[in-house]
Amino acid sequence: MTATITAFAQSPDRGRGLARDMRVRWALEEVGQPYDVRLLSFKAMKQRAHLALQPFGQIPTYEKGDLALFDSGAIVLHLAQRHAGLLPDDANARVRAGAWMFAAVSTMEPPIVEREMARLLESREAWYAPRMAMLEQRVRTRLGQLSAHLGDADWLDGGFSAGDLLLVSVLLRLKGSGLLEEYPNLAAYVARGEARPAYQRAFAAQLAVFEATQAG
Amino acid sequence: MTATITAFAQSPDRGRGLARDMRVRWALEEVGQPYDVRLLSFKAMKQRAHLALQPFGQIPTYEKGDLALFDSGAIVLHLAQRHAGLLPDDANARVRAGAWMFAAVSTMEPPIVEREMARLLESREAWYAPRMAMLEQRVRTRLGQLSAHLGDADWLDGGFSAGDLLLVSVLLRLKGSGLLEEYPNLAAYVARGEARPAYQRAFAAQLAVFEATQAG
Ligand SMILES: N[C@@H](CCC(=O)N[C@@H](CS)C(=O)NCC(=O)O)C(=O)O
Ligand SMILES: N[C@@H](CCC(=O)N[C@@H](CS)C(=O)NCC(=O)O)C(=O)O
Repeated sequence: MTATITAFAQSPDRGRGLARDMRVRWALEEVGQPYDVRLLSFKAMKQRAHLALQPFGQIPTYEKGDLALFDSGAIVLHLAQRHAGLLPDDANARVRAGAWMFAAVSTMEPPIVEREMARLLESREAWYAPRMAMLEQRVRTRLGQLSAHLGDADWLDGGFSAGDLLLVSVLLRLKGSGLLEEYPNLAAYVARGEARPAYQRAFAAQLAVFEATQAG
Repeated sequence: MTATITAFAQSPDRGRGLARDMRVRWALEEVGQPYDVRLLSFKAMKQRAHLALQPFGQIPTYEKGDLALFDSGAIVLHLAQRHAGLLPDDANARVRAGAWMFAAVSTMEPPIVEREMARLLESREAWYAPRMAMLEQRVRTRLGQLSAHLGDADWLDGGFSAGDLLLVSVLLRLKGSGLLEEYPNLAAYVARGEARPAYQRAFAAQLAVFEATQAG
């Protein structure tokens, strides 16, 4: 029984691996589980069949046997708890990985997304420059704290875990902003994540979807 | 061995129960675990001792025996997995509760917090009115989707779970905005959460902290 995930038929990021199906693909590759992908148009995402799987009309979702699940964080958590490869053996360290999973999506990601949204939606507004400065300062505060915590460690808490997977995924959104480069240990941390064979396979798979739309 | 959590010595919400220690207090009450509270000044939150527990210098944290944990979502998840009372028995339903936990903090909460931040930080800016309209529309989109999903059910997915606990906690931030009242089933859902005895005990405990600062 192979799992099926959903992804954008036409990812707005044009194959840069920033849509949230990438996190699930990466986790599936890390734990060595095969998967199928159902591609969805923006219209299909908001229709009844998909809303039954994902109440907010978003990707990704995960279906396997009689389990249907949404939210990339929850899917990664489930895969990490079900299969070996994304959580340490020590019981307390397993629990602590949860802290980094939640912090990635609820502490680090919101200011980063807010900055992206402002770039997309507000760049012609009169208030753009001062707001952008404020938003970048918010992102820097979090990056500075994270950088101080990471120090010269390879990963957040011992070996690579689901917490690193989500945090690297979130930090990748900053590519091209110049912000990550202000914190060399964070830039190196993200590069270590990207260099993992599982990441590479997942990235190639989502890129192939974009390339197929270009060829078509 | 009693758990210790951290909370604001002077909560900016003046005892309205909106700081994130409330989620952890509520979860502890639901699972019937006693706890101690260590109150922190804003200064102490950013000092080395606390940063070792919470890399972003925030509350809440959770310590019990040799486990030290941060992030309210991760703490609630840990309590739910360790003790009875916050997750259903069925294996798939337990996994699905994770979807609502992550969606609460990573899909619903960010636009709600963004609106609050704008109110706090941008209310004197020239752009305030148009930005506020945009932010409220974003919140409404999510509330509408959630309302459609909930329908006339009491809770998200069967009995009350850790997913409801986090989602109600997030929606409570909208109190006073008028937005929740546009979706009567969501307003009733939040009221059901607040009516739970465990919520009431947790609320009273955090209010007592505020009242003590006023008396002092
Ligand atoms: N918290 C959710 C967020 C999902 C999400 O925002 N998905 C985006 C793609 S990365 C989406 O489907 N956006 C389209 C939309 O919201 O209409 C998760 O992590 O799965
Ligand atoms: N994702 C974190 C967020 C924690 C958080 O934002 N805590 C706030 C209080 S509700 C805080 O400590 N703010 C003070 C600060 O950031 O300096 C969690 O859920 O625990």
